[in-house]
Amino acid sequence: MYREQIKVLDCTIRDGGLINNHYFTDEFVCFVYRALTKSGIDYMEFGYRSSRELYPPEDYGAWKYCDDDKIKKVIDTADIESDLKISVMVDSYRVKEQEFAPADESPIDLIRAATYVKYIDSAIELINKCHDLGYETTCNIMAVSREIEPDLVEALDQLAKTPVDVVYVVDSFGALYCEQIEYLVKLYREHLPGKEIGIHCHNQQQLAYANTIEGIIHDANFVDGSLFGIGRGPGNCCLELLIGFLKNPKFNLTPILKVIQDYMIPMRQEIEWGYIIPYMVTGILNEHPRSAIAYRKTDDRDKFAEFYEQMREAQE
Amino acid sequence: MYREQIKVLDCTIRDGGLINNHYFTDEFVCFVYRALTKSGIDYMEFGYRSSRELYPPEDYGAWKYCDDDKIKKVIDTADIESDLKISVMVDSYRVKEQEFAPADESPIDLIRAATYVKYIDSAIELINKCHDLGYETTCNIMAVSREIEPDLVEALDQLAKTPVDVVYVVDSFGALYCEQIEYLVKLYREHLPGKEIGIHCHNQQQLAYANTIEGIIHDANFVDGSLFGIGRGPGNCCLELLIGFLKNPKFNLTPILKVIQDYMIPMRQEIEWGYIIPYMVTGILNEHPRSAIAYRKTDDRDKFAEFYEQMREAQE
Repeated sequence: MYREQIKVLDCTIRDGGLINNHYFTDEFVCFVYRALTKSGIDYMEFGYRSSRELYPPEDYGAWKYCDDDKIKKVIDTADIESDLKISVMVDSYRVKEQEFAPADESPIDLIRAATYVKYIDSAIELINKCHDLGYETTCNIMAVSREIEPDLVEALDQLAKTPVDVVYVVDSFGALYCEQIEYLVKLYREHLPGKEIGIHCHNQQQLAYANTIEGIIHDANFVDGSLFGIGRGPGNCCLELLIGFLKNPKFNLTPILKVIQDYMIPMRQEIEWGYIIPYMVTGILNEHPRSAIAYRKTDDRDKFAEFYEQMREAQE
Repeated sequence: MYREQIKVLDCTIRDGGLINNHYFTDEFVCFVYRALTKSGIDYMEFGYRSSRELYPPEDYGAWKYCDDDKIKKVIDTADIESDLKISVMVDSYRVKEQEFAPADESPIDLIRAATYVKYIDSAIELINKCHDLGYETTCNIMAVSREIEPDLVEALDQLAKTPVDVVYVVDSFGALYCEQIEYLVKLYREHLPGKEIGIHCHNQQQLAYANTIEGIIHDANFVDGSLFGIGRGPGNCCLELLIGFLKNPKFNLTPILKVIQDYMIPMRQEIEWGYIIPYMVTGILNEHPRSAIAYRKTDDRDKFAEFYEQMREAQE
């Protein structure tokens, strides 16, 4: 698939940070920055811009806050000419201070407002503010597989009136099948004339990559992936697969494979992500992965049949 | 997706046998037989019916040959009332004697003839013979991602005149995207009026399950999966995902999850399968996995970037 408008965003440090409390070393972040630059990726998401008041710094690494200075330091260390744009995410519904420098004084190019439908007003407030400061903006409406359509449509219609650049279909629970992705992307396009549509998928059912392709086929132009799929539980669409699919000659797979062999393979010895049955079960049942996360911390972690029965009973 | 005509075939023992030379214990095969019975799966493939003359018994386990007596012994040991039908595969182009008892004297219900397009005549001969003996038959045309369409169409037109029950789209290299699956399933349907279409996918690019769904959407009614996706390299479509998708109430996921926790998880400590980058590379490049298999046996097994560069150069 070659379409020049397609933009690829790597969320390794941000989504990966959810499984290590955002404690990636500067060395690793710097290596990723260089690799993504060489691979021709469009955006690199460094993490969250969270409030220290809500998330105390003694509990989290630097990428929970993504201070401008910290990002600048990594970029300076990388010491490479780069077209890679920088993104950070803000959970618009759980943030206190929202301090951003004007875009032209910040290393950040794109601010992504993550929200649930019911908190859409908080996202719109953030988007307006960031747009006025000169940032590109997206709205990532999470857990869309559990939303009632009229509520979702109302949120989309509100977003249509804002300066937001991109609105994402986000399958937080890894529960959607390709036909539903097609339906949602078309729905978003219909209600968001002139906006770009994005797609961010999770891999509970090994559908993250396939569903991302499905989104692309139906004209989603912003697509997210992470290195070796790193992310909470089953993780995300694998960036390396995505680059294998996109035929724009500006992309180069080799530097991505190099980070995977040098960093991701050893890292997976330390922290768990990938195809893991309890998460597959939450995906099938369209549930938040929190039950699987909790179950994997117990001695019963590998009792898959029991977990499935418990989850089904809870749904009845 | 609920469609009564859909039949699910488990190829755990057959495709899994490719990575352990078909040395599964009787205990394991028996446990799988019981689990598939309880789960309402339609067919269980025990292995290959290969010639001992070509594949000496000192090199392979029992499931390379699938003698009727051996299968009967496992079924007797399982000691469970079962509607599960039994399948074996024959590589029609590399077999010497093709001795089959009449179907009513054999535990086998279905014989699947695997072939490449160029050996289609050998498959047709086998299909005719097995049909006359009373077996159900399929033709599994392998590596279809590398075939030229007129040759493929000629093979399909020949098959249309045989008594074969099912013709499979087989993505041996895990190279196909969903649009190509749609195209092929429709092509098969067009040239095979009155026949059922099957779909058998490999997981090089994490698309086996998504492509199987795509096949189902376009009316493929025979679908293959294996427990925890076991198979050579990246393996197959995961049976547990497939059962999560199919809404026929006759299917039950719990016994499948039980085999996975009790047998497949420990087994994967011993033998490698799943999402492995060199296989992903062969999938992207539409190559036979043999180069990845060989590479994984060298000291360079985790040098992904180097492998990719070598493979690309070889294609230029």
